[in-house]
Amino acid sequence: MSIDRTKIKWNGWGWTAHQDGLAQNEALWTWLAAELGMPALLATPARGLESIAIAPPQLSPEAREKFTAIVGADRVRDDHYERAFHALGRSYHDLLRMRSGDLSTAPDAVLYPRSADEVLALLHAASELGVAVVPYGGGTSVVGAVTAAPGAFKAAITVDLSGMDRIIEIDTVSHIATVEAGVYGPALEKALKAKGFTLGHFPQSFEFSTVGGWIAHRGAGQSSGGYGRAEDWLVSAKLATPRGVLSVGGFPGSSAGPQLKDIALGSEGVFGVVTEATLRIVPVPAADDYRAYLFRDFQSGAAAIREAVQSGIPHTMLRLSDAAETRFYRAYGAVGKRRGARDRLADLVLSQRGFDDKACALIAGFEGDAATVAKGRAAFDATARKYKAMALGQGQGQRWKDGRFHGPYLRDPMMERGVGVDTLETAASWTKLNDLYVAVRGALDTAIREAAPREGAQGVVQCHISHAYPDGASLYFTYIFPRALEREVGQWTAIKTAASDAIAAHGGTISHHHGVGTDHLPWIAGEKGALGIDVLRAVKMALDPKGVLNPGKLIPPV
Amino acid sequence: MSIDRTKIKWNGWGWTAHQDGLAQNEALWTWLAAELGMPALLATPARGLESIAIAPPQLSPEAREKFTAIVGADRVRDDHYERAFHALGRSYHDLLRMRSGDLSTAPDAVLYPRSADEVLALLHAASELGVAVVPYGGGTSVVGAVTAAPGAFKAAITVDLSGMDRIIEIDTVSHIATVEAGVYGPALEKALKAKGFTLGHFPQSFEFSTVGGWIAHRGAGQSSGGYGRAEDWLVSAKLATPRGVLSVGGFPGSSAGPQLKDIALGSEGVFGVVTEATLRIVPVPAADDYRAYLFRDFQSGAAAIREAVQSGIPHTMLRLSDAAETRFYRAYGAVGKRRGARDRLADLVLSQRGFDDKACALIAGFEGDAATVAKGRAAFDATARKYKAMALGQGQGQRWKDGRFHGPYLRDPMMERGVGVDTLETAASWTKLNDLYVAVRGALDTAIREAAPREGAQGVVQCHISHAYPDGASLYFTYIFPRALEREVGQWTAIKTAASDAIAAHGGTISHHHGVGTDHLPWIAGEKGALGIDVLRAVKMALDPKGVLNPGKLIPPV
Repeated sequence: MSIDRTKIKWNGWGWTAHQDGLAQNEALWTWLAAELGMPALLATPARGLESIAIAPPQLSPEAREKFTAIVGADRVRDDHYERAFHALGRSYHDLLRMRSGDLSTAPDAVLYPRSADEVLALLHAASELGVAVVPYGGGTSVVGAVTAAPGAFKAAITVDLSGMDRIIEIDTVSHIATVEAGVYGPALEKALKAKGFTLGHFPQSFEFSTVGGWIAHRGAGQSSGGYGRAEDWLVSAKLATPRGVLSVGGFPGSSAGPQLKDIALGSEGVFGVVTEATLRIVPVPAADDYRAYLFRDFQSGAAAIREAVQSGIPHTMLRLSDAAETRFYRAYGAVGKRRGARDRLADLVLSQRGFDDKACALIAGFEGDAATVAKGRAAFDATARKYKAMALGQGQGQRWKDGRFHGPYLRDPMMERGVGVDTLETAASWTKLNDLYVAVRGALDTAIREAAPREGAQGVVQCHISHAYPDGASLYFTYIFPRALEREVGQWTAIKTAASDAIAAHGGTISHHHGVGTDHLPWIAGEKGALGIDVLRAVKMALDPKGVLNPGKLIPPV
Repeated sequence: MSIDRTKIKWNGWGWTAHQDGLAQNEALWTWLAAELGMPALLATPARGLESIAIAPPQLSPEAREKFTAIVGADRVRDDHYERAFHALGRSYHDLLRMRSGDLSTAPDAVLYPRSADEVLALLHAASELGVAVVPYGGGTSVVGAVTAAPGAFKAAITVDLSGMDRIIEIDTVSHIATVEAGVYGPALEKALKAKGFTLGHFPQSFEFSTVGGWIAHRGAGQSSGGYGRAEDWLVSAKLATPRGVLSVGGFPGSSAGPQLKDIALGSEGVFGVVTEATLRIVPVPAADDYRAYLFRDFQSGAAAIREAVQSGIPHTMLRLSDAAETRFYRAYGAVGKRRGARDRLADLVLSQRGFDDKACALIAGFEGDAATVAKGRAAFDATARKYKAMALGQGQGQRWKDGRFHGPYLRDPMMERGVGVDTLETAASWTKLNDLYVAVRGALDTAIREAAPREGAQGVVQCHISHAYPDGASLYFTYIFPRALEREVGQWTAIKTAASDAIAAHGGTISHHHGVGTDHLPWIAGEKGALGIDVLRAVKMALDPKGVLNPGKLIPPV
């Protein structure tokens, strides 16, 4: 396997060995308690794995034997750790369950196939045996897409693709790479870099997620402004299905009917298991430049991004924090530090230039050859000036880039202190974006107050625009709230429902890059329409007639 | 109706009033006869419409009454001209049939709905009555996609969308326009231009084709290098289906499962009728520059295009003719003209610089703001120089642009002289492109000789690369051949089959922008795979359970 599962937290984010001192920073927690309107934060440690019981595996001896004959005994795993590790994804909701010791969705076995043929054989067998199959890449889903629930079946197996991580071909003429689906981000980028290329797909989960997962949930990385989303860089994919292999895409331009790439993109394992993919790659950029700007308010920052994208200013990323996020990170960074003369001077300059508590920070990233980077930066500089923004230089941009994958590590120490944190995201046309922003922010603020553990407690709700398109942009909300310990799942559900209802009512998609899984199921029929859902069901029936693949995800029950 | 059908040729291309003097240019026909290895060309006039009998309409009085109740009596047409006009598309194969008087696929009635609700009602009624429905935009399909064949049903109606041509909204903030599907190219561009925008979709059929048709056959216009293909500019679409309205797409970025835009894109009317679409639009470019280059051979020209596209040189079009096409158009342009001192000097310069009969002309187009145009042009100039190409200036580029929609008018006078002409196109990765080019060219040359009317007769086979992508490019073949008059359909089928087999054997798609229709059906299962075809059948069954929509197109019979 390309990554040692025992070195990753089974009930939290990232490497077990990761150390950042956050948990011990008492000043930080005191400050955060005040932000949340709480007198103090409570210790809420997770249960140890050794103390958690998991029901015995439900796989019949016959089924276990058949699966073992396909992948070999050492690749059929049903020990305590493997089952716990694969029980759930990595959403806030998942963490609540894992930390409390609810591993009721532990798979009955975890299988590690080494080839597409083995996956195909597993699917045939599972289909015949009536065993649910949960495809699993890096397992970082935050919408419940890898929860190993058996649905209507007696048992569920997780098919972990991490043993399938071969780089099959890097075609430097056509700028495409063909790889197995289980390859992790860092391994892929290392192999591509050796040939002078990059995919440029850097989701926050980059270190712990796989190519197959990026495709199956239709992902967008932090640099998608420059390198595109999964649907932009996916050239073709092979899916193993209970009815055989399905190849989709494969031509640089084709009008030979529907291209069917959507059978892979966003399919979340319900139609088949992505076993192999061909990806469009680009030369490693010769130069890069990440820098920060301060805009007067969210609307003017959004307008600058819109103008930049619509006029084709070459960029890799334009990321605008709203006033709350800007303020929060500034305050967070200042916790426990003495304010010096430089800080006071900076405050003075800002205030003299008329920046107030509506100010919004924007990180702009430019990558490419030196001329393109210079052009992009100069053009965006001019756009920012037009909107009376202040250029803050490269320091903050570089710091963002250095810490681009660290965000999720913040969650576990919060979980230890009775603090909940979750994110949700949407996208809409520029015309609808501000109303959507106001509505979702309002819904989160209100729902958090209403579901708070005590009077006066409140949330910290932040938002940024991280992905922009000529016709619209995404909104990414982070919300931090004091947990109501005796009704944690209900609290989260109330907040999530309020925000999702607001998204649906204001023309946003229920997900810009997280996917549907189980968490977004209640809103998917509204978004796709009843007939759209019928189409998804028809496709599923054609490829997975017994319905063994990832039951309960993506497609609402009839 | 937005376009007067009586002013368009019912059995050929374009405006009936179009005059270009080609038919009377005897020197041209003498030259062409020699090119084809024929002693002379025969007169092969088309049968007049008045002399052609069409079987009486097969629509039952009950059906006719129901349809009339929906759209009104003046919009249910079954006169001789309307039925003849809508019997077939505009492929070479179609023209053979129309000119010979075979109108066996004339629809039993032509209906002109005025709204999506009317289309929906028509589909409900047709589904109940068991009447085939052929959706029709501009009718310029060259693959048989609008042939009004009833399939397993007793009668077929053509639903002509040209009465639905409203511009619903032009959103200049989000850069999107929502229009009805029946709007023609020129009307769309006129409405957009009034607001300072363009779609930039300019297929050769631009004047005579509709937005709905562009979407349904997944089109690519001549300027797709700058403005994208249908799948790039389509934001969302509404389809009327026998089971109701299906909306697909609609979010600038969404990972909420499969986006289902392929239910519209390339669907060729078999899943539903596109009634409305939202399109990404861009500001009208401030500047443009079209110019020509001469490359030493096809391979170096292709390499320059590849480099330009992969390095992101901004361009609207890069169009490389192969040596045969370059030579043909040069000779064609010189027919009947005296060669003067300037021509001899030009020949001398070319020969001194080492350009021989392998030389290939390239037209490059750049559009955008002045700086982008200048940058694109300078960058492509440098790339061309690297490959030892010669810059030929703007004259030839401007001439290409001025005549960009005139090509199809050449066909009718050829048809009058016993000459056949057809085009076919494909696309593949850069790695496969040259082998594909050689194979298809060889297959066409051989098949034309083998199927020729006499010993020594031959074809003129030309090719150009007209659309390029980072991972590959299209090949567009034009082949001109002397018709074997007593077995014309067999001759065409033999040539088409040989070329299509070569495409399939060398990794090309069976169509880059023409679509599937009926003509490419034999190769579609090879391209999509049996399981891919099953998926298409499942989608069709979900939306059109009775199978009334465009029978016999896109999806091979079971």
